[in-house]
Amino acid sequence: MTLSIYPVSGIGEVEKGVRLGEVIVEALSKIGLTLLKGDIIVVTSKAASKAEGRVVKLSNINPSKKAFRLAKALNKDPRVMELILNESRRVLRAERGIIITQTKHGIVCANSGVDQSNLPAGYAALLPKDPDRSAEVIAEQIAVKSGVRPAVIITDTYGRPWRRGQVQFAIGVYGLRPILDYRGKPDMYGRELKVTEIAVADEIASAAELVMGKTKKCPAALVRGYEYEEGAGKAKDIIRPLKEDLFK
Amino acid sequence: MTLSIYPVSGIGEVEKGVRLGEVIVEALSKIGLTLLKGDIIVVTSKAASKAEGRVVKLSNINPSKKAFRLAKALNKDPRVMELILNESRRVLRAERGIIITQTKHGIVCANSGVDQSNLPAGYAALLPKDPDRSAEVIAEQIAVKSGVRPAVIITDTYGRPWRRGQVQFAIGVYGLRPILDYRGKPDMYGRELKVTEIAVADEIASAAELVMGKTKKCPAALVRGYEYEEGAGKAKDIIRPLKEDLFK
Repeated sequence: MTLSIYPVSGIGEVEKGVRLGEVIVEALSKIGLTLLKGDIIVVTSKAASKAEGRVVKLSNINPSKKAFRLAKALNKDPRVMELILNESRRVLRAERGIIITQTKHGIVCANSGVDQSNLPAGYAALLPKDPDRSAEVIAEQIAVKSGVRPAVIITDTYGRPWRRGQVQFAIGVYGLRPILDYRGKPDMYGRELKVTEIAVADEIASAAELVMGKTKKCPAALVRGYEYEEGAGKAKDIIRPLKEDLFK
Repeated sequence: MTLSIYPVSGIGEVEKGVRLGEVIVEALSKIGLTLLKGDIIVVTSKAASKAEGRVVKLSNINPSKKAFRLAKALNKDPRVMELILNESRRVLRAERGIIITQTKHGIVCANSGVDQSNLPAGYAALLPKDPDRSAEVIAEQIAVKSGVRPAVIITDTYGRPWRRGQVQFAIGVYGLRPILDYRGKPDMYGRELKVTEIAVADEIASAAELVMGKTKKCPAALVRGYEYEEGAGKAKDIIRPLKEDLFK
């Protein structure tokens, strides 16, 4: 089995209301690719947010006192801080210019996922409201347009404790089980494996980042040749309840 | 640019003293693959540990009192606990059956990377003593045998805070910069990117896991088509000093 990962170039700027799944099928066609059964489409949350109109004009935001206070302490724009707080369920850390929150989806990340990169000045993007649903909608649009229903992964870029640099992880999933469960399966000596769960959706997201990059105007990738477990899994399944977390 | 990832199957059991680089070139040849300039070879730390003789017979271990005490508390084998403590610089967490340490390399992980899977009963593997050096040695062996010097990444499987499941990350690197630095580079609107550093070595390690799996006896993969920055980077560069860490 060879895994192939293709950048879906030629998508261009994503406007509000754009049917991303259709745009992806058209872009694939222009680079000579036809979707096959078992393909996985990876899409950045930024592109999904733009299509879903989750881009906010900062001049329309009136920051709260709390947002002003935190913004000053962390050297951030108070309007952006207002958005970060709005998107959060709770603030876990706020120091040294960094704010880590648990978002309303339950994701733990910096800035509640609010991001200003690859946007015109004066705007910020919020994460999609329900990234699992975003993935499903894109899969449906692709199925209607191409006749093939791929698995879809929506990604965001994450920092990791104890490690420098960021990697792409999955925040929305449709059509594949995000966690591959090895529990009870034997290792090469027939002993039960201790490593029990692999977050394959995160690994696929990271793999796709390698062709998407951050400056290449390439918000999507096609992953072909990965034999995934089909299923109704959601990226929410990857989120570990805070109280179970040993690293916290 | 298409990224292709090939499992290097047919390596078989790795014995102490085996020249892994040579074995990999032979295995590639059997599946009809010839190394090209720019290729990246990904190898599990388990395979490197076996080749380097970092497999320990547990009946030879005499656990300390501390190891006995911690083993009892965490429901682990005291001999394995002794190894975990020996490999660690400090213990960060020890509760609910899990011990997280900083290893002598500086890596923060469960069990100091000591692992019993894919080994005969009664044995445990320690991480390679210097995984960056392991990567370099394998690259050199491959260069001598094939005439092409690839980049090499040594991997281990990691849990992540706040997320379920594990993914493969890089613990040893040779020939490529593990962190891609976007600082100062413009986004698609010409604004400076906020996301500044991508841990591409970790993303490549995760991508390779998708073809290597945990039960497939496939300890290596060939990653082709990723235009990496050549350089003298080391996986040590990915380790964030504990005092800088905001997630801790």
